[in-house]
Amino acid sequence: MRVSDYFLPTLKDNPSDAQIASHRLMLRAGLIRQMASGIYSWLPLGLKVLKNIENIIRSELEKSGAVEILMPTIQPADLWRESGRYDAYGPEMLRMKDRHNRDMLYGPTNEEMITDIFRGTVRSYKKLPHILYHMQWKFRDEIRPRFGVMRGREFLMKDAYSFDIDEEKARYSYQKMMVTYLRIFARLGLTAIPMRAETGPIGGDLSHEFHVLAPTGESAVYFDRAFYNIKSLYDENPEFDHIESVYKEVTKYYATADEQYDEDEFFSRVSEENRVIGRGIEIGHIFYLGTKYSSAMDAIVIAPDSQEVPVHMGCYGIGVSRMVGALIEASHDEKGIIWHKDIAPFHIGLINLRQGNEATDAACEKLYQACINAGLTVLYHDTDDRAGAKFADIDLTGLPYQLIVGPKGAEQNMAEVKIRATNEKREISVDNVVDILRGEIL
Amino acid sequence: MRVSDYFLPTLKDNPSDAQIASHRLMLRAGLIRQMASGIYSWLPLGLKVLKNIENIIRSELEKSGAVEILMPTIQPADLWRESGRYDAYGPEMLRMKDRHNRDMLYGPTNEEMITDIFRGTVRSYKKLPHILYHMQWKFRDEIRPRFGVMRGREFLMKDAYSFDIDEEKARYSYQKMMVTYLRIFARLGLTAIPMRAETGPIGGDLSHEFHVLAPTGESAVYFDRAFYNIKSLYDENPEFDHIESVYKEVTKYYATADEQYDEDEFFSRVSEENRVIGRGIEIGHIFYLGTKYSSAMDAIVIAPDSQEVPVHMGCYGIGVSRMVGALIEASHDEKGIIWHKDIAPFHIGLINLRQGNEATDAACEKLYQACINAGLTVLYHDTDDRAGAKFADIDLTGLPYQLIVGPKGAEQNMAEVKIRATNEKREISVDNVVDILRGEIL
Repeated sequence: MRVSDYFLPTLKDNPSDAQIASHRLMLRAGLIRQMASGIYSWLPLGLKVLKNIENIIRSELEKSGAVEILMPTIQPADLWRESGRYDAYGPEMLRMKDRHNRDMLYGPTNEEMITDIFRGTVRSYKKLPHILYHMQWKFRDEIRPRFGVMRGREFLMKDAYSFDIDEEKARYSYQKMMVTYLRIFARLGLTAIPMRAETGPIGGDLSHEFHVLAPTGESAVYFDRAFYNIKSLYDENPEFDHIESVYKEVTKYYATADEQYDEDEFFSRVSEENRVIGRGIEIGHIFYLGTKYSSAMDAIVIAPDSQEVPVHMGCYGIGVSRMVGALIEASHDEKGIIWHKDIAPFHIGLINLRQGNEATDAACEKLYQACINAGLTVLYHDTDDRAGAKFADIDLTGLPYQLIVGPKGAEQNMAEVKIRATNEKREISVDNVVDILRGEIL
Repeated sequence: MRVSDYFLPTLKDNPSDAQIASHRLMLRAGLIRQMASGIYSWLPLGLKVLKNIENIIRSELEKSGAVEILMPTIQPADLWRESGRYDAYGPEMLRMKDRHNRDMLYGPTNEEMITDIFRGTVRSYKKLPHILYHMQWKFRDEIRPRFGVMRGREFLMKDAYSFDIDEEKARYSYQKMMVTYLRIFARLGLTAIPMRAETGPIGGDLSHEFHVLAPTGESAVYFDRAFYNIKSLYDENPEFDHIESVYKEVTKYYATADEQYDEDEFFSRVSEENRVIGRGIEIGHIFYLGTKYSSAMDAIVIAPDSQEVPVHMGCYGIGVSRMVGALIEASHDEKGIIWHKDIAPFHIGLINLRQGNEATDAACEKLYQACINAGLTVLYHDTDDRAGAKFADIDLTGLPYQLIVGPKGAEQNMAEVKIRATNEKREISVDNVVDILRGEIL
């Protein structure tokens, strides 16, 4: 993509109302634009990041056997009256009446709706288990939306729901999703720590939150550093038959967020040199729900012994739009964002230091086409802006590789490659550079 | 995908409340499920179709230079007060108040919001032209939702908006989108006829609707058969420099929907043997808007002569979820849906006629893996259902190719290939069949 054809409204100055780095950088790099308090449009760069995250989540969920559907945003209140949550849910629920005066709401979550789909379609244990998921915009009318997409009102969430014939199988689904989540976060370049959590009003008796460390995290977190050493357990294509042992291993270390923190336990279970105390951003939350929704809403299946039993459910959420903010909080510097190559909106920022210089333009065009032909995505900064402004733009947008060509390099048939994260620079022949980048990126 | 692992709730009987074929078949084949009047969940098969359509639209729009963004579903009423449409829009607008008592609405369309994004980011003619598009759920509170996704309340729409410095350039953008639309519809397997239309309350003075013919179409349409002969004009990678001549050609034939129909003109301009009178389903609508929104909302750019002028806009819509219904209306038979291979949820339905028979199971497994390795998508009907039920399921879901293996075929190393659309059958060796299918499908 050429910047001259693109829609890339970067800002030179820091927006005054943005308090944290991710919010500031998302506005400055032209990823998002605020439409109302806590409601954002996703501009081209931001949307590409959002979709890259979606696709990583989708591919790991599909490997786990989960099946994608899509539920609507607007829900009838009557469904929520069945579970008892319509009145229980507070002012965070966006409520409205349709033209026939029926109570409707903008879904803040989808337990009721998925239970309705299930009870209308599945009757026998023979069709179980099922894990269904969707990625859809949700709305929670936060009293004080802030931190950009980290605490917005309209937000994109991936929510999955498992259905099993009994508690034992439902706990296995829960374990499978725990491992799948750890794999998703690892592919996003994050170490996310599962922390035993309270279930709260959603119900059930087993729950974990996943936190990534960042100084701006909303919760204090306390955990055993040993967790960092077990990444290979879930990261290297685990056989799904070993789920139970992987689950046991990843949950055996002490890890809690502030609500459940118990200093005595932390000190007794974790040796001094292993104690990590930090701040965490919650990026996922999983629950074993039991039969709370299925009992209330008559989601009944025939068991092997011909008895009618309520189905056992679990629910599993990842904040997809919030993840964009969390990734930036975890990876940026004073110049801007630093994307992991699998999440970056483009792999490469191609910088022409002297637009209009014949040899430079020709070298850049050649490299631009060669990158595209090699399957690399490239943002070609081809405007008349001076070099400094182009460097600032490309640093700000966080593309992992920069490919820089000026008149001198063009003459000598050389390009400079800069790694955004490390600032490492290399001079490489124009003839070889795309092959080399391809090897490192794809 | 194996049916035993999938979520495919097909129905044997016709739902009583579905009046037209697409609605009936989408419910029966397990593509959608109704959540409230005019509000649907998309089940796995339906969602795959929806995404295939999205991807075809996206790829043609990108070729035209349009850039994708994503606007939110919830909009502040104040934006619509600026254009004067907040009060003008009738009860089809879903309105609500947030917890701070601010008037909000669920976007039925996005002219105001895109104008707000534009005015906040673009100041100079040097950054023009721009065509921005998004695909997002919209809500129109139809008084009588019906015909399934054809006239739903929550629906997926692709809307694009063009921004140009003057009327001449804006009309060129309009022409480019006209040609892009014809290419999109052709890739979806449809001949869509552009019909001169009234602009109505959206504004502007130039507009075309795109209709596909179907007996259940909502409008009477009248056009010159000659239109069918000019498909090659836009279908074969047109150079975008020839846009104006292609546009001239595709709009020169008489074609109107009932509102603008004039019998005298139809009879005088179209020879008797060329007159087509039928019913049309509207699947797209394009408008040249002029400066209606930019003037009202101060979307001003600096022109080459340093004057401040309101930007000239166009808007371009395709009903994406409605398209699923329109495609089925245009292509089905008494057994079910018949998908075009580029839109089908899977290319191939693999039918095991005797699950549990060792040789048949082995042949099917081999074919299943070979299809996947060849890059073909395949739904393997691997349940214990009897053969008749499997045929009925696969016919109903409309997969373009069926690959059928029974005990006798497995013994002789032969599979049967059936083309869903024509019922044509071939016996092909298990060793060659995947290569042959790959050649026909990819």
